[in-house]
Amino acid sequence: MGKVYLVGAGPGAPDLLTLRAARLLAAADIVLHDALVHPDTLRLAVRARLIDVGKRYGKVSTEQRFIHRALIEAARTHEVVVRLKGGDPMMFGRAQEELEALAAAGIETEVVPGVTAALAAASALKVSLTRRGIARTVSFLTPRVGKGETASEWLPAAMASDTVVLYMAAGAGPGIARALIEAGKPPSTPVALVESATLASERRTHTRLEALSRSEVTKADGPVVVCVGEVFRDAAQELHIESLQSAANE
Amino acid sequence: MGKVYLVGAGPGAPDLLTLRAARLLAAADIVLHDALVHPDTLRLAVRARLIDVGKRYGKVSTEQRFIHRALIEAARTHEVVVRLKGGDPMMFGRAQEELEALAAAGIETEVVPGVTAALAAASALKVSLTRRGIARTVSFLTPRVGKGETASEWLPAAMASDTVVLYMAAGAGPGIARALIEAGKPPSTPVALVESATLASERRTHTRLEALSRSEVTKADGPVVVCVGEVFRDAAQELHIESLQSAANE
Repeated sequence: MGKVYLVGAGPGAPDLLTLRAARLLAAADIVLHDALVHPDTLRLAVRARLIDVGKRYGKVSTEQRFIHRALIEAARTHEVVVRLKGGDPMMFGRAQEELEALAAAGIETEVVPGVTAALAAASALKVSLTRRGIARTVSFLTPRVGKGETASEWLPAAMASDTVVLYMAAGAGPGIARALIEAGKPPSTPVALVESATLASERRTHTRLEALSRSEVTKADGPVVVCVGEVFRDAAQELHIESLQSAANE
Repeated sequence: MGKVYLVGAGPGAPDLLTLRAARLLAAADIVLHDALVHPDTLRLAVRARLIDVGKRYGKVSTEQRFIHRALIEAARTHEVVVRLKGGDPMMFGRAQEELEALAAAGIETEVVPGVTAALAAASALKVSLTRRGIARTVSFLTPRVGKGETASEWLPAAMASDTVVLYMAAGAGPGIARALIEAGKPPSTPVALVESATLASERRTHTRLEALSRSEVTKADGPVVVCVGEVFRDAAQELHIESLQSAANE
């Protein structure tokens, strides 16, 4: 019987992997990975058979059952099994279901944390999510609606927190902004959208809740986090000044 | 003029550093680090002068001004300056003040994210902070009270979130529990305390809000995060079963 390591691959850039994750990939006999893991990260698994258990298997529920079966089968036939998940495994990753399925099958597990998307976005924006006098609480949530859940379920936490980062928010920006304004957030609240944080294709957009609420839903090529809160105000102003300066120089 | 890299050192264990952070440490001419960074992490900075800018300089405000001066001076006299912070730099790390002081001095900066303590604790507990049907919102906050702030300022976010992780919570457990119960959290809400997450000295304690509220404040040797929410219930039960089993075996 092998052991399964649930490993965070970090936010995107291959060098934002941890040393421990790199060592485990090098030692892995088999790696079951998410669709969005960087090819250079997978190349660290020099000995391993690679299995993409990403979003290609149709419906989510089917896919999750498939992943459980594949993990159990992998642990029965290999010594070092790595389940490589984007970002950190314990945040929006359905890790608990995988850990429980493995525990039920009597398979040993270990979890290796990673750099989560919200903190990669904060680094890219050069904005601390907490700030003395402005932001002492940070909420992470997703606007994605699961079975038996309604969109409004994330609103109370978003309203009560100084800084809010919404994961898996591609295409959801305008709806998020409208819900927050309706619930009473000032329409002038700064917003930063970060797509494909830490990758070469990274895109950062600064706006306000009001402008975002009136914008069209745009298609994103990579994962998007939406960051809302007063801490993002200065970053928006600096970007505005930069664009004025570059316009003046042209 | 040098460049200053604000780098997350991760939660404690030296191999939970990112590859990028390790490469920057190896290239650094000077490293200004927090008090709690692991000695093995500092050893990666083979070429660098090491300066501990931790909590030894007395009052916080004095210390922060000293750090700003030291960073600016370092950038004026060295090419690669690493400011190494515990966990992730953009979470409870006063990074914004340092970035602003450096920007005001015309010094280039870059931020390298790290594994934050809450996610290290979640890995250690093997509990996902989010979970379908149970927890779709996570709040990170600190019970520490700054100038002009009151303890109750973190309560609304804590009450509105399914999972709450409180940073820098050593000695604050009973007070946190009493505040949450008074505000209406069920006294039976599971709590996990993790001290020195990912280090050899790591200690995990499972309890409930009610028991924690009645407990004595105990001295911690390392940093403590307090995790509150239904997601921690199963972990508590498993630990209970394990301790019954080990008692039966003795």
